Amino acid sequence: MTTTTNTETTLFVSTENLLNEWLGHRRLTRRVIEAFPEDKLFDYSIGGMRPFATMIKEIIDISGPGIRGIATDNWEHAGNINNHSINKEDQSKDGLLKLLDQSTEEIIAFWPEISDARFQEVVLAFGQYEGQVFSTILYFIDNEIHHRAQGTVYLRSLGIEPPAFWNRD
Amino acid sequence: MTTTTNTETTLFVSTENLLNEWLGHRRLTRRVIEAFPEDKLFDYSIGGMRPFATMIKEIIDISGPGIRGIATDNWEHAGNINNHSINKEDQSKDGLLKLLDQSTEEIIAFWPEISDARFQEVVLAFGQYEGQVFSTILYFIDNEIHHRAQGTVYLRSLGIEPPAFWNRD
Repeated sequence: MTTTTNTETTLFVSTENLLNEWLGHRRLTRRVIEAFPEDKLFDYSIGGMRPFATMIKEIIDISGPGIRGIATDNWEHAGNINNHSINKEDQSKDGLLKLLDQSTEEIIAFWPEISDARFQEVVLAFGQYEGQVFSTILYFIDNEIHHRAQGTVYLRSLGIEPPAFWNRD
Repeated sequence: MTTTTNTETTLFVSTENLLNEWLGHRRLTRRVIEAFPEDKLFDYSIGGMRPFATMIKEIIDISGPGIRGIATDNWEHAGNINNHSINKEDQSKDGLLKLLDQSTEEIIAFWPEISDARFQEVVLAFGQYEGQVFSTILYFIDNEIHHRAQGTVYLRSLGIEPPAFWNRD
């Protein structure tokens, strides 16, 4: 039981509901990957931008390890977040979806390990990005929405209708 | 003074901090509009998608009137949210930026009018979209991030480097 003064911290969204919002985004992100022809996932580009697979690898590298780091304060094995190269054995649509699912499982597994107070604390994510935990996590999600949306333009330019943005089921 | 059971509703983010996150996104959205050559804002398209100005008009039509509706429960003058056409007198970069700023001011003005309890209540936004208020507001923001990101692909394909995604100042 915790007593809070409502004028200081009115609840916008609870940790549980925010996680559910994120998992809804994950389902949509998965569908956008699935909508790509396998080859276009790895070699299609507009305006010199990265292929969609590399953007997705960034999302994978940031999200699972990011939540693990926030939960454990151990960023040692969080990987090189400036290099989102994909291992040869994962260079297929199935391989990428598997990596995405693993990072989603990591988010789900470590979320309950984040203490209640932690969400308002200042963290140095990946040893270099300072911010309050809620803001850092929103950044992870915003980054996923941002790159996924770029992927939908790739799809449209390939003549493929992207999955509906509003559907998070 | 409100007493909450922490196991039920652990605070992820407060209403005040969430508004600040949104205003950071607004500053970035503004910079993405500014980065467009005036004519490309209204006539450039990839894959049959809408011009960026029309996407921005959607963001404007949803966000200000959406927060006003949530605050007042009056959706009468929330406009036709399926028609994001731009009035002739607003068809310039300056006109569009002015409309965006007006909607940002509307968000700021009506935000404090939303009662503390309201954020967890179920709302029928624009008389047709049902959801808890926090989820509806996150959808407004997600939609802004989504379409803005599509605009950054337009910019890249025009050979223009978009404003940095991480900068919300």
